[in-house]
Amino acid sequence: MIIPVRLPAGSYDITLSRGALSRAGEIINLDRKVLVVTDSGVPKEYAEAVAKQCKNAVIITVPEGEGSKSLETFGELCRALLENGFTRSDCVVAVGGGVVGDLAGFAAASYMRGIDFYNIPTTVLSQVDSSVGGKTAVNFGGIKNIIGAFYQPKAVVIDPDVLKTLTPRHFSNGLAEAVKMSLTFDKELFELFEHEDAAENIETIIERSVRSKAAVVEKDEHEAGLRRVLNFGHTVGHAVESVEGLGGLYHGECVAIGMLPMCGEGLRPRVEAVLKKLNLPTKWRGDPKELLFAAAHDKKFSGEFVTVVTLPEIENYRFEKWTGEELLARMEAFFK
Amino acid sequence: MIIPVRLPAGSYDITLSRGALSRAGEIINLDRKVLVVTDSGVPKEYAEAVAKQCKNAVIITVPEGEGSKSLETFGELCRALLENGFTRSDCVVAVGGGVVGDLAGFAAASYMRGIDFYNIPTTVLSQVDSSVGGKTAVNFGGIKNIIGAFYQPKAVVIDPDVLKTLTPRHFSNGLAEAVKMSLTFDKELFELFEHEDAAENIETIIERSVRSKAAVVEKDEHEAGLRRVLNFGHTVGHAVESVEGLGGLYHGECVAIGMLPMCGEGLRPRVEAVLKKLNLPTKWRGDPKELLFAAAHDKKFSGEFVTVVTLPEIENYRFEKWTGEELLARMEAFFK
Repeated sequence: MIIPVRLPAGSYDITLSRGALSRAGEIINLDRKVLVVTDSGVPKEYAEAVAKQCKNAVIITVPEGEGSKSLETFGELCRALLENGFTRSDCVVAVGGGVVGDLAGFAAASYMRGIDFYNIPTTVLSQVDSSVGGKTAVNFGGIKNIIGAFYQPKAVVIDPDVLKTLTPRHFSNGLAEAVKMSLTFDKELFELFEHEDAAENIETIIERSVRSKAAVVEKDEHEAGLRRVLNFGHTVGHAVESVEGLGGLYHGECVAIGMLPMCGEGLRPRVEAVLKKLNLPTKWRGDPKELLFAAAHDKKFSGEFVTVVTLPEIENYRFEKWTGEELLARMEAFFK
Repeated sequence: MIIPVRLPAGSYDITLSRGALSRAGEIINLDRKVLVVTDSGVPKEYAEAVAKQCKNAVIITVPEGEGSKSLETFGELCRALLENGFTRSDCVVAVGGGVVGDLAGFAAASYMRGIDFYNIPTTVLSQVDSSVGGKTAVNFGGIKNIIGAFYQPKAVVIDPDVLKTLTPRHFSNGLAEAVKMSLTFDKELFELFEHEDAAENIETIIERSVRSKAAVVEKDEHEAGLRRVLNFGHTVGHAVESVEGLGGLYHGECVAIGMLPMCGEGLRPRVEAVLKKLNLPTKWRGDPKELLFAAAHDKKFSGEFVTVVTLPEIENYRFEKWTGEELLARMEAFFK
């Protein structure tokens, strides 16, 4: 199945197909020098399956985890591109989760001011969310995604077969972003989460999430307007993630926690029930004041205000401008 | 005088006006947090003149020279933005030459995936050339401009009055890029260089160079086609610059040297006469083989070939695909 993404700066296709990993060379142009970027948590067979389809592959394996989303590791990828003589007609392929995609994407965006980038996401989280949208970044000074670029891939290849090697916790973690997408744009998908088994319906979940996200990104590539709806659950979620630090909760788990304070009273019990069914957390026991401090560096802050997304009902989101104090008050009311 | 630059991703104005520095706040929006980036070679009064027109200014002064175009200094600018709580609605202003513009522009392009960037070039070189076009970059691994972004400024403010503090060598250095522009696009401007005094006509030289460059960039923002004509003199020029290293010849001087081997036999004496009149070098005594090694990392190499711009006659440029061997042969014939 092909899901097109049409953008002013150039369009690309998302291919969603079981077994696509071993046919990647038929879908994307690997007949050149290819830097295959993966991490130590990804089965190495995946990167190797891609590499053996390339004319000339260099595999770089970075350590698993957010720690690799650093300016230093970014420099290492650029050095590998330089030392292997990559030119503007060569390319970078990410084989892994969001960390690998964000890092490799930023290297591809910046090397020679931009060479071709392909994303082959291997986690639920990256398949349903971060593979679409062109956001690339590294962390810096303790703040997530503070240095990066909007840079669209030339193509995205999603192979649901690779998900079978994920731990149950990673599988659930990714579903949090799909639940977010369903709440803001796709009531039917939310009802699927309520009534059906997620693992059995994973292709449908990926497809519907990707279609929703692609539609949003097509309307607002650079997050000037509508796209901010994708931040539903993320203002609080990113703050929780910052405070938790490395080794704490996963991104999707933080988003699960972050969505609940933004849901209307009537909707909240349904969301809570779905999150529990998916083994996602619904509570956080830390100090809301620490969250506010972390949130103050959020890119969603503009001057003194932060734009949050609230959700009185499914598919009925609102943008609200809150001060830091208002955000703190909501968090204190919820995380008590 | 306003010179508009119209691009698909957004348009901006170049304001060319004597005394513009002290009126910058009327031309660009400084009513917010502003990171003013300058270097130790720029009279500090210039950055201060801009800072005092800002609502909230932070001045960063990096050391003069190419050494500041590094990933480390880029990180320092990002850290300053972060530590001073810059949000997406704040901005970066470059006050200096090409080094400052390239570095500050890349920081603005990357911080939070892009905040507003203004360029106030203070050298002839940056006024006639690097302030227009949206190329930002740092050097890495000994290679110039290898990490960067295409990122357009929100506006460019050119004040020819600031040029009076330049040394004669820096003044001449900048004129090399204007000569290049005249050779490829503007015969009348080349004749001005032949028959008139450059210093007395500096406003005309800036205006005509900027108009030519803006027209090229409008047609080809990302250097996919026509824009490569701006690389006239730069394949050899960049290689000379690489081999010379820090403390050697200036960029414009290298471009002067790099243009001559690419000119037709009939044209070359005229170009040589103009370069001499402007106190620019016309010869280089190093080893062409070293040049080839440096050129091999040039972004203009695509696979095995490099696209060079040759100029049989004024305004009559050609793109030619050369192998490394062909490039070496031309350099050996010329630098003998």
